[in-house]
Amino acid sequence: MQRAGFVAARHELEVESESEEETMRCVSCQDQYDADEAGTCKECYEEANETEEELKREIEDLKAKVAFLRFWSPLDHHNHRSCGPCFTDVILVASSDEPPAGSPVPVPAHKAILVSRSPVFKAMLENEMEESRSGTIKIGDVSYDALRAFVNYLYNAEACLDEQMACDLLVLAEKYQVKHLKSYCEKFLVSKLNWENSIITYAFAHQHNAKTVLDAALSTITDNMDKLTKREEYVELVEKDPRLVVEIYEAYLSKQVNTAAHKDSPVKP
Amino acid sequence: MQRAGFVAARHELEVESESEEETMRCVSCQDQYDADEAGTCKECYEEANETEEELKREIEDLKAKVAFLRFWSPLDHHNHRSCGPCFTDVILVASSDEPPAGSPVPVPAHKAILVSRSPVFKAMLENEMEESRSGTIKIGDVSYDALRAFVNYLYNAEACLDEQMACDLLVLAEKYQVKHLKSYCEKFLVSKLNWENSIITYAFAHQHNAKTVLDAALSTITDNMDKLTKREEYVELVEKDPRLVVEIYEAYLSKQVNTAAHKDSPVKP
Repeated sequence: MQRAGFVAARHELEVESESEEETMRCVSCQDQYDADEAGTCKECYEEANETEEELKREIEDLKAKVAFLRFWSPLDHHNHRSCGPCFTDVILVASSDEPPAGSPVPVPAHKAILVSRSPVFKAMLENEMEESRSGTIKIGDVSYDALRAFVNYLYNAEACLDEQMACDLLVLAEKYQVKHLKSYCEKFLVSKLNWENSIITYAFAHQHNAKTVLDAALSTITDNMDKLTKREEYVELVEKDPRLVVEIYEAYLSKQVNTAAHKDSPVKP
Repeated sequence: MQRAGFVAARHELEVESESEEETMRCVSCQDQYDADEAGTCKECYEEANETEEELKREIEDLKAKVAFLRFWSPLDHHNHRSCGPCFTDVILVASSDEPPAGSPVPVPAHKAILVSRSPVFKAMLENEMEESRSGTIKIGDVSYDALRAFVNYLYNAEACLDEQMACDLLVLAEKYQVKHLKSYCEKFLVSKLNWENSIITYAFAHQHNAKTVLDAALSTITDNMDKLTKREEYVELVEKDPRLVVEIYEAYLSKQVNTAAHKDSPVKP
């Protein structure tokens, strides 16, 4: 059935080709097009196809490399059972201000991994500091789950994020200077950004030096200036940290000036 | 200037469009083409462009991930100096049959890394074997340089290969089941394959179970059957391992049959 339809379509094409207006058939979507819709010639199409194949091969190679370099983590229970001893030589402990329900669960790790991934751990463990001698690193203001996810990421560059976890991990990444994780969390937070959470996200990004998130949040806010002052978070921010509010207005002003310059027209009142 | 040129080119195109035979201009190479050289329409061209951009972004992300997951190796002198203690907990020693000029130089490493990269090291170090107790792993029939390159690869998936090193590392990769390294060496050896080295490479690939290299070498040999029996390596192989020579002839025969079937013509005498 389909084949018959195809043959009919070809026949149609041939008939049309013979008519006055010459039309082309796109080798990709198979639709007809004419001069003003022209894309590439066949040679360039084939070249582009080859490039795409090459890029895909490179991606496969890189994925295999990532899989090779990725570590099982000592936290991965499935592997933990099968791997027996994991040769860990340090433990991390989450210590929060809240009184703990029991003694905190330690997170085992390898000094070599921590040192390799974070310049802060490097300085801490290579210079005879308290943590190096005791083999215990206390991490303040963090939940066990966030600490666990943080250590896991150091082993395999993977994390399962929601907004809360992305914020928690960004704070740890900033504190321990794990750039790759920070940028991973920033991308996630930008993807979740909307008008509703923009003010809170803006304040958070400011506090933790997350430039990408900050710029994206500012852009969302300045796109909605008419609604800004009515929001509760705005009123709170004016109260708590008016400097940040000033920066919003400065960004808005600069955006207006830029837009005006772009349009070659005076700034709207 | 450039803009004026562009406008002129557009004008030319418009004039030509009005002529009898309608021609298109390829948006990629800027050459004109007509119906039988048609590639894609503009929409598909733009889509393909977007796909290419996406693939390139994915490559950048993967490269960053590789850089993050890659380890400095305890052998990397530059880092070694700056990193102070490297928390290594095992040493590897190259032991060859030749009487050593001095005591062999040990290669320091981390059990956690070895175990993570090789199922053979995993079995060795996790079960209370001699190597696990002593913290020393003897690696037989290998040069110090090859052992060093091998351990380095386990840390950062990088190696500087020549043909000898690729062979040495392939042997180690096979012995310790480091698949990623084996396939890396195989790719390199295939890229260096030619008629001159094909018989030696074939015998080597056979011995070390390197299927990709084996197939490529067999293909090179069977393309040059007229010259085969005159080669010294061939005579030696007949002497040393005639089974392998039989496999060459079998591959040749099977190729001939396939070619014949493909051409729908009888096998040439």
